[in-house]
Amino acid sequence: MSKSISIFDTTLRDGTQGEGISFSADDKIKIAMKLDALGVHYIEGGIPGSNSKDIEFFKRVKDLGLNAKITAFGSTRRKESVAAHDANLKCILESGAQAATLVGKSWDFHVHTALQTTLEENLSMIFDSISFLKSSGLEVIFDAEHFFDGYKNNPEYAVSVLSKAREAGADWLVMCDTNGGTLPHEIHGIVTALNGHLPQAPLGIHTHNDCELAVANTLSAVQAGVTHVQGTMNGYGERCGNANLCSIIPNLQVKLGYEVIGENNIRNLTNTARYISEIANVNMPVNQPYVGNAAFAHKGGIHVSAILRDSRTYEHIEPEKVGNKQRILVSELAGQSNIVSKAQDMGLQFDPSSQQAKTVIGKIKDLEHQGYQFEGADASLELLLREANGEVHELFTFESFKMLVEKTAGRPVVSEAFVKINVGGQSIYTAGEGNGPVNALDNALRKALLQYFPSLEDMHLSDYKVRVLDDKETTAARVRVLIESKNAVHSWNTVGVSGNVIEASWEALVDSMRYALLGQISPEWIEHDQQPRQGIINH
Amino acid sequence: MSKSISIFDTTLRDGTQGEGISFSADDKIKIAMKLDALGVHYIEGGIPGSNSKDIEFFKRVKDLGLNAKITAFGSTRRKESVAAHDANLKCILESGAQAATLVGKSWDFHVHTALQTTLEENLSMIFDSISFLKSSGLEVIFDAEHFFDGYKNNPEYAVSVLSKAREAGADWLVMCDTNGGTLPHEIHGIVTALNGHLPQAPLGIHTHNDCELAVANTLSAVQAGVTHVQGTMNGYGERCGNANLCSIIPNLQVKLGYEVIGENNIRNLTNTARYISEIANVNMPVNQPYVGNAAFAHKGGIHVSAILRDSRTYEHIEPEKVGNKQRILVSELAGQSNIVSKAQDMGLQFDPSSQQAKTVIGKIKDLEHQGYQFEGADASLELLLREANGEVHELFTFESFKMLVEKTAGRPVVSEAFVKINVGGQSIYTAGEGNGPVNALDNALRKALLQYFPSLEDMHLSDYKVRVLDDKETTAARVRVLIESKNAVHSWNTVGVSGNVIEASWEALVDSMRYALLGQISPEWIEHDQQPRQGIINH
Repeated sequence: MSKSISIFDTTLRDGTQGEGISFSADDKIKIAMKLDALGVHYIEGGIPGSNSKDIEFFKRVKDLGLNAKITAFGSTRRKESVAAHDANLKCILESGAQAATLVGKSWDFHVHTALQTTLEENLSMIFDSISFLKSSGLEVIFDAEHFFDGYKNNPEYAVSVLSKAREAGADWLVMCDTNGGTLPHEIHGIVTALNGHLPQAPLGIHTHNDCELAVANTLSAVQAGVTHVQGTMNGYGERCGNANLCSIIPNLQVKLGYEVIGENNIRNLTNTARYISEIANVNMPVNQPYVGNAAFAHKGGIHVSAILRDSRTYEHIEPEKVGNKQRILVSELAGQSNIVSKAQDMGLQFDPSSQQAKTVIGKIKDLEHQGYQFEGADASLELLLREANGEVHELFTFESFKMLVEKTAGRPVVSEAFVKINVGGQSIYTAGEGNGPVNALDNALRKALLQYFPSLEDMHLSDYKVRVLDDKETTAARVRVLIESKNAVHSWNTVGVSGNVIEASWEALVDSMRYALLGQISPEWIEHDQQPRQGIINH
Repeated sequence: MSKSISIFDTTLRDGTQGEGISFSADDKIKIAMKLDALGVHYIEGGIPGSNSKDIEFFKRVKDLGLNAKITAFGSTRRKESVAAHDANLKCILESGAQAATLVGKSWDFHVHTALQTTLEENLSMIFDSISFLKSSGLEVIFDAEHFFDGYKNNPEYAVSVLSKAREAGADWLVMCDTNGGTLPHEIHGIVTALNGHLPQAPLGIHTHNDCELAVANTLSAVQAGVTHVQGTMNGYGERCGNANLCSIIPNLQVKLGYEVIGENNIRNLTNTARYISEIANVNMPVNQPYVGNAAFAHKGGIHVSAILRDSRTYEHIEPEKVGNKQRILVSELAGQSNIVSKAQDMGLQFDPSSQQAKTVIGKIKDLEHQGYQFEGADASLELLLREANGEVHELFTFESFKMLVEKTAGRPVVSEAFVKINVGGQSIYTAGEGNGPVNALDNALRKALLQYFPSLEDMHLSDYKVRVLDDKETTAARVRVLIESKNAVHSWNTVGVSGNVIEASWEALVDSMRYALLGQISPEWIEHDQQPRQGIINH
């Protein structure tokens, strides 16, 4: 079994139909480069002529020298018209793309209801449009919309559509399950029957996830002989999404032994998926198969002790094969062995039988009980563990903060923060403004620290999450704040919990700064032998 | 085809292994009641004896008189011990559950590596444990862990495990794909072979989603003859989650015609799924099949016009069958018809062609664009619509608020709010404290209003949610606050959006009070002919 499968990525076209997914031309260029590096065979860039972003994309992508074929999307010509005069087909030609995806109807019901034309005219629309693009030297991928619904309703007509497309010279005949309602055994049955009608046809598959079966439907089609697979990264797409290439590629290559993108490239899968989710500005679900942050995470105590003995006991593949990694979660359920293995990951010398270790494990459990969650706050956890190991030099201590939010009818809201900290025996008092309370606190604290720790200059907060922990007491309930911070090279996460959202944010902010200063043993003015100034400094 | 399938829900046990999923005993009781109303056949409640929440759950659930069988989870007895003395088996008996799920090993590799015992002893552990529980009158569901990996490695041994469990009287023999690595065609092949080895055996299936195939694997097993299906609501579970019952139930019942939970119950599917995600305090992915908010949403212009002509053109089932509904995104025409239908739901006379209607529809779209979301804030939407209809009497107006949070090292954080509003020409200035800023604002505003509107006495905030809308700008990003309020009979939801979490909370708070006062036309001191007092009143 080393049949090769060609991968057609439509993240940049069908993916953008997903709720909340939108890419600038620049985003599209970045994603195309990343997809090319992953080794997909086709990158569908958009609909040329439909909007300025897509026009710009097709213009810029030509100069990048990508290996993947850039593909432009469009429909067959309008009814009762001439292909050579069709605006949409002309845009495809002008885009300069090497390949075109042409969508056409294959469900007789749709020909009547949506196109409002005859079955014969639809066949001509398909034939003419493909012939026109082929005669201009393009590779043509024909997407037969609603193919499976069409086949169930009128198999003869659905087959005649593919057969007409082939006659016109289409390079791929792609069967689309546009509504996502077809089941795997149906796909297998229909593709198998089709092999009889159209022997040796270059068949492709395009599925949607409305029944949570898009990946299974794709595998089913491939197992019945299809060799071209369309999908999107992270399954982005309209309604429930398109078939998720991040699951399909490893299923085909790692599990079923097809030649897809090769052993080296697939190691970039996790990284590529996360990069694209960053650009899309959509959180990747932690439980996303293969590439999610929890895909190889272990929480249960029994599982963890077995995993540490032999990872095959609870892992279906080695996570490294797809560029992911095993994570042992710190949680109430699992406890000590988890924390020890975390500490080892951080390169800490950590003797689990020591009194120190027992104390810090007790402390972590207690904090978890209060609502802290270290699964998403590695930096706060690392601070606790290093502290227990005596490795943390506290470079500043907290004295007080005040936070004021003021709003008068008809005028913008104002947020101010006043922070007092102590560095090397010296009290520093600063004020900061912001367009929200946390922003104001961040500005005030940063102002206090920057003069002593200029290395903080290049860090900034990059994500802020708030969760109410117990909805029973409502505004009096506990709140958990998670903060992500970044500098030029790293990102780290910290946590704070309190009945008060401002206090919880403050805790997470302070941890973020402490983490950024790990390894530094004194303020820079002490390192440079300056004298600490006396008294309170106001800024 | 009207074979019936028994549904075994393990949201409360295996589901809690999911990252970020944790339920109190109270949560568990609420979910069990909701699952029972949905008509699932088994509800696995937890691991009795493992923690106090599960113990409390089993104690309380007995009195609810649910139709579903409550099931307690545990492992087969420890090696080289006696079942009747096994602490874990005794806990199951003491829990008072009607049924027990017993997990046992069926992969020889695991018997050696994880249990570190002999294949024979493992068979005895299974036989003894099941016999012991059966002799105490429990129904026993045997979960054969890693069954498919076991079968691939040593089919004879895997079969002997099931056969031993059956001999001991197990009511269901459940094949688990514990690592989630098995593919649908493998499941189909193995279950089919098993039908030969163990004719007429009452087989069940339990899958995980590590290859994004848990739903397909379950269907595959059912199509090969399995009649008992284990899974969780929304697919909660360790790593990539368990098989998602919210997709499996409609696939089996609506698509394949099995008898599962009945036509009426399945209309509660969307509602149940969303309720459980609320209790879990986990956002439901908008693109979740069948029950997600985008599952029947249409964005593309061509799709939308076809959908409006005939919804079968782009919908694989009628959304109402599973209690969901069609949503048309963006298109102006569609937005309008949605709002009109909402207004009608509220019993409002609302002429969509009037200038008033056009103005409010424009306003709502603009607010949505700013990040307001009225799906979860019906009361705020109703206020906007009634306002447009001239039905809202503004009983108070906002003048200003100040909110102060102060924290000094070693002392508890203090939150104070100062609110100035105007009732009937009279300025009222109040102060309130709270253990968080929103609590303080709520207390101050309530103090100002209560003297004029004593009917507010019996309302209180019952839920508070914060969402950061745009994580690119972090602490300077926009924040959406959703507040749920309750009185003795009703609950209602309001929304606020701002760059400032305090201002967003204030907006939602004020809307909540305004909604509570709908229908009242003047302060009660005016109704009672009292004289309004002059000047500012300080409390």
